[in-house]
Amino acid sequence: MQIGMIGLGRMGANIVRRLMKKGGHQAVVYDISDQAVAAIAAEGASGAIDLQDFVRKLEKPRAIWIMLPAGAITESTIATIAGLLDKDDVIIDGGNTFWQDDIRRARTLRDKGIYYVDVGTSGGVWGLERGYCMMIGGDKAVVDRLDPIFASLAPGRGGIPGTPSRDGRDPRVEQGYLHTGPVGSGHFVKMVHNGIEYGLMQAFAEGFDILKNANTNALPEHHRFKLDLADIAEVWRRGSVISSWLLDLTASALARSETLEAYSGFVADSGEGRWTVNAAIDEAVPAEVLTAALFARFRSRQQHTFAEKILSAMREGFGGHKEPGETDPSTKGRTAS
Amino acid sequence: MQIGMIGLGRMGANIVRRLMKKGGHQAVVYDISDQAVAAIAAEGASGAIDLQDFVRKLEKPRAIWIMLPAGAITESTIATIAGLLDKDDVIIDGGNTFWQDDIRRARTLRDKGIYYVDVGTSGGVWGLERGYCMMIGGDKAVVDRLDPIFASLAPGRGGIPGTPSRDGRDPRVEQGYLHTGPVGSGHFVKMVHNGIEYGLMQAFAEGFDILKNANTNALPEHHRFKLDLADIAEVWRRGSVISSWLLDLTASALARSETLEAYSGFVADSGEGRWTVNAAIDEAVPAEVLTAALFARFRSRQQHTFAEKILSAMREGFGGHKEPGETDPSTKGRTAS
Amino acid sequence: MQIGMIGLGRMGANIVRRLMKKGGHQAVVYDISDQAVAAIAAEGASGAIDLQDFVRKLEKPRAIWIMLPAGAITESTIATIAGLLDKDDVIIDGGNTFWQDDIRRARTLRDKGIYYVDVGTSGGVWGLERGYCMMIGGDKAVVDRLDPIFASLAPGRGGIPGTPSRDGRDPRVEQGYLHTGPVGSGHFVKMVHNGIEYGLMQAFAEGFDILKNANTNALPEHHRFKLDLADIAEVWRRGSVISSWLLDLTASALARSETLEAYSGFVADSGEGRWTVNAAIDEAVPAEVLTAALFARFRSRQQHTFAEKILSAMREGFGGHKEPGETDPSTKGRTAS
Amino acid sequence: MQIGMIGLGRMGANIVRRLMKKGGHQAVVYDISDQAVAAIAAEGASGAIDLQDFVRKLEKPRAIWIMLPAGAITESTIATIAGLLDKDDVIIDGGNTFWQDDIRRARTLRDKGIYYVDVGTSGGVWGLERGYCMMIGGDKAVVDRLDPIFASLAPGRGGIPGTPSRDGRDPRVEQGYLHTGPVGSGHFVKMVHNGIEYGLMQAFAEGFDILKNANTNALPEHHRFKLDLADIAEVWRRGSVISSWLLDLTASALARSETLEAYSGFVADSGEGRWTVNAAIDEAVPAEVLTAALFARFRSRQQHTFAEKILSAMREGFGGHKEPGETDPSTKGRTAS
Repeated sequence: MQIGMIGLGRMGANIVRRLMKKGGHQAVVYDISDQAVAAIAAEGASGAIDLQDFVRKLEKPRAIWIMLPAGAITESTIATIAGLLDKDDVIIDGGNTFWQDDIRRARTLRDKGIYYVDVGTSGGVWGLERGYCMMIGGDKAVVDRLDPIFASLAPGRGGIPGTPSRDGRDPRVEQGYLHTGPVGSGHFVKMVHNGIEYGLMQAFAEGFDILKNANTNALPEHHRFKLDLADIAEVWRRGSVISSWLLDLTASALARSETLEAYSGFVADSGEGRWTVNAAIDEAVPAEVLTAALFARFRSRQQHTFAEKILSAMREGFGGHKEPGETDPSTKGRTAS
Repeated sequence: MQIGMIGLGRMGANIVRRLMKKGGHQAVVYDISDQAVAAIAAEGASGAIDLQDFVRKLEKPRAIWIMLPAGAITESTIATIAGLLDKDDVIIDGGNTFWQDDIRRARTLRDKGIYYVDVGTSGGVWGLERGYCMMIGGDKAVVDRLDPIFASLAPGRGGIPGTPSRDGRDPRVEQGYLHTGPVGSGHFVKMVHNGIEYGLMQAFAEGFDILKNANTNALPEHHRFKLDLADIAEVWRRGSVISSWLLDLTASALARSETLEAYSGFVADSGEGRWTVNAAIDEAVPAEVLTAALFARFRSRQQHTFAEKILSAMREGFGGHKEPGETDPSTKGRTAS
Repeated sequence: MQIGMIGLGRMGANIVRRLMKKGGHQAVVYDISDQAVAAIAAEGASGAIDLQDFVRKLEKPRAIWIMLPAGAITESTIATIAGLLDKDDVIIDGGNTFWQDDIRRARTLRDKGIYYVDVGTSGGVWGLERGYCMMIGGDKAVVDRLDPIFASLAPGRGGIPGTPSRDGRDPRVEQGYLHTGPVGSGHFVKMVHNGIEYGLMQAFAEGFDILKNANTNALPEHHRFKLDLADIAEVWRRGSVISSWLLDLTASALARSETLEAYSGFVADSGEGRWTVNAAIDEAVPAEVLTAALFARFRSRQQHTFAEKILSAMREGFGGHKEPGETDPSTKGRTAS
Repeated sequence: MQIGMIGLGRMGANIVRRLMKKGGHQAVVYDISDQAVAAIAAEGASGAIDLQDFVRKLEKPRAIWIMLPAGAITESTIATIAGLLDKDDVIIDGGNTFWQDDIRRARTLRDKGIYYVDVGTSGGVWGLERGYCMMIGGDKAVVDRLDPIFASLAPGRGGIPGTPSRDGRDPRVEQGYLHTGPVGSGHFVKMVHNGIEYGLMQAFAEGFDILKNANTNALPEHHRFKLDLADIAEVWRRGSVISSWLLDLTASALARSETLEAYSGFVADSGEGRWTVNAAIDEAVPAEVLTAALFARFRSRQQHTFAEKILSAMREGFGGHKEPGETDPSTKGRTAS
């Protein structure tokens, strides 16, 4: 079928490529960058020079996938494009949008007869090759209409063994895409997916940190090990309980450089981790691990927190303790007082 | 080659089976249960009636694998068997022993010329079929001597793709076993493995808890979703960033029953999680996620903590707040005061 | 001066009493309960039979203090009363309102020339006697106009020693009330106050839990102590670094009963703790302790979380581990596997 | 009575001073620094030139208070002095010793008829003036013998109101010292005291961090407040639920400088926080807040953790995300991807 794509960054461009190559679909594409449009047009897509042109080139009912950074730019693009569309067209937001924004937008668009579908898309830079795992929120009728698109983007069964006890369940799920429920639910599920991702990443990160710091002079001899982190990551990939794609990636990075000196350790976060914790709080669900993972990222981006200065000030207040200063970290800051 | 196995529980028996079937090794086996011995003997092993008999049946230099619950029983068994062994024999502790116990034991055995090797073994009940991921601490010479054993137990390369940038590294690692370093290092690495395992499990657990509780009456309409947890777990197995064996297991469990009503939620811990946190503290490594995962298990085993009663007492003290009581949890305990 | 009070619960009634007794102020009072009105009227206030009567009895420019549970009832009361007021009147919200609600309301009221002041009020059931600590947000002119009210409600200097280096600063702060800034800032500061309160409470609670559980049979002898918690709390009140009002309250509760058997340990939360964590997330401030304190309350209100069932299901999945069941907690759930 | 003091640092010297001034006791003092000895001798103590001289100057049964940094120096000093003492003498360790070291030492000394008493001492640099809060472990007979010492050091009732329901309890507790139980219990209770202290400090620190960061450009207008932290700390000292000595100290520090620019935020820890978490783990007590407070200190002493580099490496691995770099922290590291 035909799809329109707005936003030809890493994700958007690869989605178009996969749709054309894997599914034989036709794509009309638009991006604020003419170069980005030209590049994909050279691969077989129909490039649009502006949104009017883009809309004109699409057959009704139109299917338009928006793949832009979540937030203001997605919001304004949807507002603009909605003014150009007709009844029964569908807008698909494939970015990392806050699910309550989906619900609000869908309500507005519904008045004009335009459908809205939110697709949480996982797969990162590997999606072109491996396919995208998709969590899809929206009305059943329109999600079904888009099924050829989702089927082409999804990874498919591949070599992954089936799960027992799934007889009678929707087989599309085993292709790697799922209609999660009404509008908003796709991004809600993707949000929690990313919240979990933060927790998994932090668990691995802490474990490797403990392995690395076992080789510290300040430790007693019976606690000191000089371990080969790259080999450890590799061996865990084989038959261990913690084997996972994130471990595969860690093993790759450590094989390239065991000290990871290419990275400073300044870790961004992208919204979903925060919204996941907010959702947990609204639901009164204790989510210690997901929250700790988020806070570790916050902390990674500061040299010192004001909180830490408050601690130092208190310590001086009651104990006359002077800060040890930014001394050799191998002393680990243990003091006798 | 020939191996002696003491301890024919789920793990020990399956290790013997895999050694005989996969590697064509001979096994001499002993267990405090005659029945357990008879069962494995019926599959081809040589059963021993007591430890003397066991030692007698093994060719020198002997290789003896102990697969018993970590703690007192492993300790006393090693003490007893050591008295029956000769110079150059090797004792392998494949259980979940505390790494500092390994170091102490090895020191004692070294005086008698007996080798000690600690093997952290991951793979659980699936090891017989999938193979065991092994982290091995001990002297290089004796670890090399035992290589045929480890090679047979390990999962092998299987269908798992190789990691780039590993040229020139020990190829055995890609079979799923690793000589981690001196005595103690095998169990140290396995300990951190399990610490990470706790963190990963808790990350998934919290995420699914948030998904489940999105379907709570007390929530505003725009936050309420009735989600199919089994389908969500399944779809995440396909191309998502968080795909992993633990997710596979979760998908299986949820496919059997989405409410998990077979489980009460009383979660044991096995030592490694605790030791991992202790190691982190000794190394001054912040390990928020691994610790939170451990504490969640502690909390799961109590109806209420004393800490919570202290909170209630304080709240009454300053605010006159009465405990809301074990009321409908759907109210979520939010109060206006 | 004259003040109107809507809401004669524990807090509202005591505020009126303190204003009349301590400051010689006149009060017009209203509550949905005639009895509550009659009781305070008997102590010297002027009781109103409805909101129209209430407004009529107040001299212009009116000063009306709303002391109702935060949320819908406060919201609708303010909407109703606003319709009855005149330019230059002031509405004071003394409850635990979400600070963004203050900002929204103030904007609406400003169009009518009505002032809005938000007062975070701490002091609980002890405020009548000890006075109330107040954090006040609003325009400077109207906050100054209300100064006689705040001065009477505040605790005053009392026996609390002054803080060095405060020369030249606003002396009213040392009376126990503070103009924190524009509308919303009073409740924002009070919110963080309560967030800190949760953290402090949880720190004490965990400490006493550790002291109590030192007397557990499963522990080795060198870790077992039978400690007198009431005496420990008492001694810490005297010269220790952690002396505080919350400790005083804990000492009282433990002196009454060291087992706190009157409490189940079901701990409510009141909104501010949640909003504090939300604010921390919006600011990218790591707030581990305040969040852990909040989550401990969430957990206290459930018998088991779904997360814990997920953990049990995974453990069975990879290790065949059966749940130990709700057995004797003194075994502490340690397992050998 | 007469007491010997070894160790004339800040704590030891002030304890001697308070004993002489407040209780009229005689003191024999020793320190490795001649100057420290001379200084206290000038104030009335009897200075010793070496340990032999020190022991000779003390009347039997001798009472010797050791006030040295916990660890090796305390250990070796006790070993040396024990060789010079006689039956019925008592060694008091007033430092921050690990409680299991107390138990081990007391067992050794008991064979020689020498008593051992462990005294957890809180009060910091303020103890000389305010008195010391003491938690005392040891045999009842010898603790009673030392009562005049403890009574002089303790703060006494002072202006602190009594706790209701304490009729019939040991009145010495209200003076600020407590016989907590057998050897080790004094330092165990002091350890938990310090664990709580860490938690309280961190709760305040996070709260003030949230207040400070409310004034960040990146926040939406309705979340931005420029707050006076010094005034807020001060007002909370008056009648609020969180009033405490630690808050008093914070108010002092902020009154001196609201930015705390004298502090870098590098925060030491002293052992008790770590042991408290270890004890919690051994007891299977969830202690989230105390642990988070400890980890925050660990983190404060590193520029970046290895864990954070692992996170960055993973993020690049799955998403191609480049580290944003050590950019303007006001952007808060939020990314759209």
